[in-house]
Amino acid sequence: MALIVQKYGGTSMGSVERIEHVARKVASWQQQGHQVVVVVSAMSGETDRLLKLARSIDARGSQREFDQIAATGEQVTIGLLALALGKLGVQSRSYTGWQVPIETDSAHMKARIQKIDGARLLADCQAGIVPVVAGFQGLTQDGSVATLGRGGSDTTGVALAAALKADECQIYTDVDGVYTTDPRVEPKARRLDKITFEEMLELASLGSKVLQIRSVEFAGKYKVPLRVLSTFVEGPGTLITLEENNVEDPLISGIAFNRDEAQITMTGVPDRPGIAAAILGPVGDANIEVDMIVQNVGDDGATDFTFTVHRNDYDRGLEIMRRIASELGAQGVSGAADIVKVSLVGVGMRSHAGVASKMFKSLAAAGINIRMISTSEIKISVVVDEMYLELAVRTLHKAFGLEEATSA
Amino acid sequence: MALIVQKYGGTSMGSVERIEHVARKVASWQQQGHQVVVVVSAMSGETDRLLKLARSIDARGSQREFDQIAATGEQVTIGLLALALGKLGVQSRSYTGWQVPIETDSAHMKARIQKIDGARLLADCQAGIVPVVAGFQGLTQDGSVATLGRGGSDTTGVALAAALKADECQIYTDVDGVYTTDPRVEPKARRLDKITFEEMLELASLGSKVLQIRSVEFAGKYKVPLRVLSTFVEGPGTLITLEENNVEDPLISGIAFNRDEAQITMTGVPDRPGIAAAILGPVGDANIEVDMIVQNVGDDGATDFTFTVHRNDYDRGLEIMRRIASELGAQGVSGAADIVKVSLVGVGMRSHAGVASKMFKSLAAAGINIRMISTSEIKISVVVDEMYLELAVRTLHKAFGLEEATSA
Repeated sequence: MALIVQKYGGTSMGSVERIEHVARKVASWQQQGHQVVVVVSAMSGETDRLLKLARSIDARGSQREFDQIAATGEQVTIGLLALALGKLGVQSRSYTGWQVPIETDSAHMKARIQKIDGARLLADCQAGIVPVVAGFQGLTQDGSVATLGRGGSDTTGVALAAALKADECQIYTDVDGVYTTDPRVEPKARRLDKITFEEMLELASLGSKVLQIRSVEFAGKYKVPLRVLSTFVEGPGTLITLEENNVEDPLISGIAFNRDEAQITMTGVPDRPGIAAAILGPVGDANIEVDMIVQNVGDDGATDFTFTVHRNDYDRGLEIMRRIASELGAQGVSGAADIVKVSLVGVGMRSHAGVASKMFKSLAAAGINIRMISTSEIKISVVVDEMYLELAVRTLHKAFGLEEATSA
Repeated sequence: MALIVQKYGGTSMGSVERIEHVARKVASWQQQGHQVVVVVSAMSGETDRLLKLARSIDARGSQREFDQIAATGEQVTIGLLALALGKLGVQSRSYTGWQVPIETDSAHMKARIQKIDGARLLADCQAGIVPVVAGFQGLTQDGSVATLGRGGSDTTGVALAAALKADECQIYTDVDGVYTTDPRVEPKARRLDKITFEEMLELASLGSKVLQIRSVEFAGKYKVPLRVLSTFVEGPGTLITLEENNVEDPLISGIAFNRDEAQITMTGVPDRPGIAAAILGPVGDANIEVDMIVQNVGDDGATDFTFTVHRNDYDRGLEIMRRIASELGAQGVSGAADIVKVSLVGVGMRSHAGVASKMFKSLAAAGINIRMISTSEIKISVVVDEMYLELAVRTLHKAFGLEEATSA
C-alpha cells in the first residue's frame, strides 16, 4: 500500500464525462489498496474566462481580487469530483486551499507555498476518505486567497506530496509521458521510462512543456518521485527521479527546441571590461528577456557580441542596439528573426567526451549551418536557420540512437 | 454620517455594466459621508448553472459539495464589485463568508447564521474601505462552506446590519419599493413609503415576493430598519419599520393575492373531537402543504370542513379526501381548482371596526361571490373564483382609498 498524490489538469476536468472518467481512475487506485489524495485544476478555459471577466472591469485592479475570482475555478471542480467519487461509492471530501490549509506568501497571482498542514488530509486517508484538493491556490497570512500563477496546480500536487511524505506524485495530463523529442517533428520520438530532474528542467525550459518548471524544481528539492502520465491512455508514463549514477544511463535523454527565438549581433565592439553590461543593460531596462549570450574573443581589440531574445522582442531589441552602437564605438548591428534553438539534453554527456563533436558532425553532414553554440553541464544548444529545424531534430534523434532504447 | 448595509441581488450583478452601475451607487453613498458595507448575490442565473452542473453528476450527492460549488457564484461577484469600486478610486476589499467570518449551523443548502464577527468589516469602514461581502454563504463549525438556501443574500444583509448595528439595511432589487398591490393587476397601485414588519410578512407570504420572508423576520427580531429600493430607478423606496402607534397610520397597507390555490371541502362530517386531525393528518403525511383552513359549526351534529392547497396538489388532495371520507362517515367531498385568495393587510385594522364588513360589501356590490373567509389580527383573506381576481383587487384597492395617500 502506498500513499499517492494524483494531480489532474484542466483538460482532464474539461467536462462532466471527463470528471466521471477521472473518478473511475481514482477509485481503481483506491481499490488496489492505495491511499489517494487528488489535486485538480479548473475546467479547461475556466480560469481564462474568469480572468477575462475581471480584466473587463479593471485590468490593473487589485491582484487580491483577481485571485479571489480566479480561485473559484478549482472550487467548482473539487466539488464536482467529490460528487463523482461519492456516486461510485468512494467516500470523498473536497478542500479549497484555505481549508487544507495551504499557506502562501502574499505575492498575489504568483504566490509561493510556504507551509502545508497535512493533518486533515492524512486523517481522511486513514479513514478511507479520498481528499480532493484545489490546486493553484492557497491562503495568505492575512486571510486572503492567493493563486500560484498559471500551471500552479502541478506545484500544489508536488508540495502536497512532499508535505504528506507521499510515495509518488502522479501528474496526469494529455500526453502519456516525456518523449525524446516532440513527436510532431520526429514521429520516431520515444517515451522515456525515466528521466532525471535536471534533464527534465532543461527539457521543460527548452520547450517540451509537459510540466510546470517550478513544480519540477520543487520535486527535485524535496526528493518527491514524480510521474507524468496520461489521463486518457493507460500506461506507466515517465518517472522523474533523482540522478542515479548508473553506467547504463543513456548518453542523451532528449532533444528540445524552441521556435520563438531571434538573434541580435553587435559586431566590432571594442573589447574592454564592462562591455557586456553596457550592451545588455539597456535590453534589461526595456524588460526584454535574453536567452543565449555568446561573445567571441576578438584578436584585434574588438569582439562580436551575440544574444537571442523572444521573437516578439526582436524589433525593439534591434532598435536599442542601433541606438547604443555608435556610443559604444561598435562597427555595426545585424540580426535574424528566422532562427531556432535546438538542444541536446542528457546527464550522461557529463562523463562522455565527444558528444559535442558528434553533434556538430551530424549537423554538418546534413548540410545544416550552425550560427551559435552554447553549452552547459548537461546540454548543448545550437542556433540554426528556422528552415532546418525538423531536419536538425531528426538528424540528431537518429545520430544519438533515440528511436530505440539506448545504452551507454 | 450613517453606517449602511446595502444588498444587491443577482439582477443588479447581472453583467459587467450593471456591476459598474452598482459601484457608482455605492461610491455616491460613500461620498455623501456614509460608511457602506455591501452584500452581493451571484450573477443572475449563475447559482442555477452551478447547481445544474452538480446535479448532472449526482443529484443526490453530498450537500456539502453542492455548497462548495454553489458558493463560488458570490465569490466571483464580490471580486468584480471590489475591482469596479477600485477603478472609481474607492478603496474596497472583498470577503467570502468564511473570511468575515459568518458562522452557520451545518444544515447544508439551508444553513442558518449563528454568529457574525464584524470586527474586520468595521475596521475597514473606519479606514475608509468599503467591504464587499458574499451573500448566501457562511462557514460551519467544521470548516466547511454552507449556503443559506435560495434568496439567502437578503438574510446575509440583514444579519450583517444587525451584527454591525447599522443604521439601515438597504435591499436593492428590480422594483422600487413595496406596492399597495401588484401594479400589473391594478395600474393605480401606489408605492408605500413605510410599512411595518408584520404587514410586510403578510404581504410577502401572500405573494408580493419582494423580499425573502426569513430576512424580514430576522430584521424584525433584531430591529434593523430595512429599506427596499431599486438599483435602476432613483427613489426613496419603502422603509420597513417596527410598528409605530401612529393614529395617522393608514387603515390598510396593501392587497395581496395568490393565484395558485385550490379548495377542497368535505361536507357532512360528524362533528366530534379530533375530526380536524383525522382529516388533515393524511394530507400532511402526503407532504401536501395546507394554507387556509375553515370549519363551519354544524347544527345537526355534522360540519363542513374546507381547506386550500397549492393547485399542483389538488388532485392528490382530493383523492386522499375521497379515500377517507367514508371511514369518517362524511357525506361527500367536493372541490375547486380555479379559485384564488385575495387578502387585505394592515396593522391599522386592529383598532378599526368595520374593515371586514366594508370589504364584504364592496365585493358584493361588484357581484363577486365569496367562497371562504379567514381572518387574522392584521389581515382578512377571502377565496373567490379565479375569474374575479382582477376585479376583486381593483374593487378593494379603490374602496380602501389606496390610490392616494390614505389616512385614518
